[in-house]
Amino acid sequence: MGGDHGPSVTVPAALSALQKDADLRITLVGLKEPVQALLHGAEPGLLSRIQLREASQVVTMDEKPQEALRKKKDSSMRVAIDLVKSGEADACVSAGNTGALMATARFVLKTIEGIDRPAIISRIRARHGHTHMLDLGANSQCSAEHLFQFAVMGSVVAADMHGIARPRIGILNIGEEETKGDSVVQDAARLLAASKLNYIGFVEGDDIFSGEADVVVTDGFTGNVALKTMEGLANMLVGALKTEYTRNPLRYVGALASWPVLRSLRKEFDPRTYNGASMVGLTGVVIKSHGSADTVSFANAIRVGLVEARKGVPTQISNLLKEQAPAVA
Amino acid sequence: MGGDHGPSVTVPAALSALQKDADLRITLVGLKEPVQALLHGAEPGLLSRIQLREASQVVTMDEKPQEALRKKKDSSMRVAIDLVKSGEADACVSAGNTGALMATARFVLKTIEGIDRPAIISRIRARHGHTHMLDLGANSQCSAEHLFQFAVMGSVVAADMHGIARPRIGILNIGEEETKGDSVVQDAARLLAASKLNYIGFVEGDDIFSGEADVVVTDGFTGNVALKTMEGLANMLVGALKTEYTRNPLRYVGALASWPVLRSLRKEFDPRTYNGASMVGLTGVVIKSHGSADTVSFANAIRVGLVEARKGVPTQISNLLKEQAPAVA
Repeated sequence: MGGDHGPSVTVPAALSALQKDADLRITLVGLKEPVQALLHGAEPGLLSRIQLREASQVVTMDEKPQEALRKKKDSSMRVAIDLVKSGEADACVSAGNTGALMATARFVLKTIEGIDRPAIISRIRARHGHTHMLDLGANSQCSAEHLFQFAVMGSVVAADMHGIARPRIGILNIGEEETKGDSVVQDAARLLAASKLNYIGFVEGDDIFSGEADVVVTDGFTGNVALKTMEGLANMLVGALKTEYTRNPLRYVGALASWPVLRSLRKEFDPRTYNGASMVGLTGVVIKSHGSADTVSFANAIRVGLVEARKGVPTQISNLLKEQAPAVA
Repeated sequence: MGGDHGPSVTVPAALSALQKDADLRITLVGLKEPVQALLHGAEPGLLSRIQLREASQVVTMDEKPQEALRKKKDSSMRVAIDLVKSGEADACVSAGNTGALMATARFVLKTIEGIDRPAIISRIRARHGHTHMLDLGANSQCSAEHLFQFAVMGSVVAADMHGIARPRIGILNIGEEETKGDSVVQDAARLLAASKLNYIGFVEGDDIFSGEADVVVTDGFTGNVALKTMEGLANMLVGALKTEYTRNPLRYVGALASWPVLRSLRKEFDPRTYNGASMVGLTGVVIKSHGSADTVSFANAIRVGLVEARKGVPTQISNLLKEQAPAVA
């Protein structure tokens, strides 16, 4: 039910995801009537792979996480996460209130043994491919041990999404020299250097795009600021491009002549492709879609959940963590 | 002497700055021969406003700040800052090693009374105008009091550069709600709310460009990451635009037809315009240029130094800080 657009986006997105993957089954959780209305007329072949689970409450986008957790025990969010807990679903995908989703997921699913705090990870478009970055906002203050655990989780996600055997891990810092940054990043660097992970050292903000690292590890404060800085800058540049191309009729001609270029760029950098941030470190798969996601965008978030569930990301995190044990003991 | 290109950039930039401002006088500090060679043939009207001060040493770009401070007492950097200290110069502009410049400036000039730590501030291109952001990397860990002092310094710089009577100040955070972030940003928010500054609350990464705030205050770790994230993303997008426009001859046509648009955008977002970060909080004006600056870029950094010196930024910071005294006592 969540997100800015509710089932009017999530239901068509579910149908689109079902169409693309014949083995996928989806349980739609929410208020019965609007969901049923939106399913009306869908292909029987798709409908046969859809279940409807009613939930009477809706967590609003500005509701406080702890309040949602306490008062909304029959919200679509809570019921969907309960389904993951009971094993009836392999992943929960939501466009709802991030804080409430994280608090509920953490309360119901708990963290994997050895992981203190879940983190939010997402793919970021880089110069030649992608970078995975975490934490993007779940934990504003982190210890060196947390950053180490983020590196383990990021390593698993990057390997599963791209088939990279040993993802290169960098810690975000304000310089590449070993002496840079505070004791948290320096201690985390030591933990990682002593681990079996493929740690490549400190990286800087521009390296998120340089392709130097497959996984960029940082605390949730810095990660969230960096992510929103990217969004803000990208929006400003796209806005400026539109303004310039529509300034006068001659410029329209330029836009027409540039159509193949603009279309390629739009396709290549379409933020909808990157929708679906994963809340890693939990015993189950929980994917957070952008609240403003459209159908294409939300279908991508479903796809992320599908891949993570198939690859068994939580189990793999647990395994990779155990392999590192000597380094963190 | 500093920067990636040394006097081959700084000397022509100085000549260009002198040409634009008839009241400007410049002392070039460095190795005599290369500087004199570059001045050869310059207009006598400009040469009459240039002084040459020899300095026998050069601080290299990868030299450790404390080592440069201890061992290079006759470096161009040190001599230039000494000139500010003695009153022979009103501002020092350098493209050299940032850490060494900061350490030397702090050692020689000291901070203004009431300012614990100098910070690096720069203009950032926003949707409709500019934002000033600090700290961009001088202090990776900051207290609430430091952030408060940054706000005072940012307020003075924004007012002086844009003539805004009461610059709107925001603290960078991971949400706009008062409960977001750690105790440092929350305590800083209380200090600012109780001050006479025009504090507007928490802002997020995308607000650096939204125009909501004139000054964005943050610690040097987050600020540096955000700044380099912008640089990395902008470079990636410009690179992609170039690649797409040169993919085949038809696309060249598109580029030609788009020439007015591309030229406008290039002019509007030219990073060279934004060169010249100020090391505020010191008793004198010290401007740091990008190490890779070209002549146009370095001339802009000189311009920043000129404006700050004329406005008397250090004195104004001291005055504005005194006005706030009741709030921080």
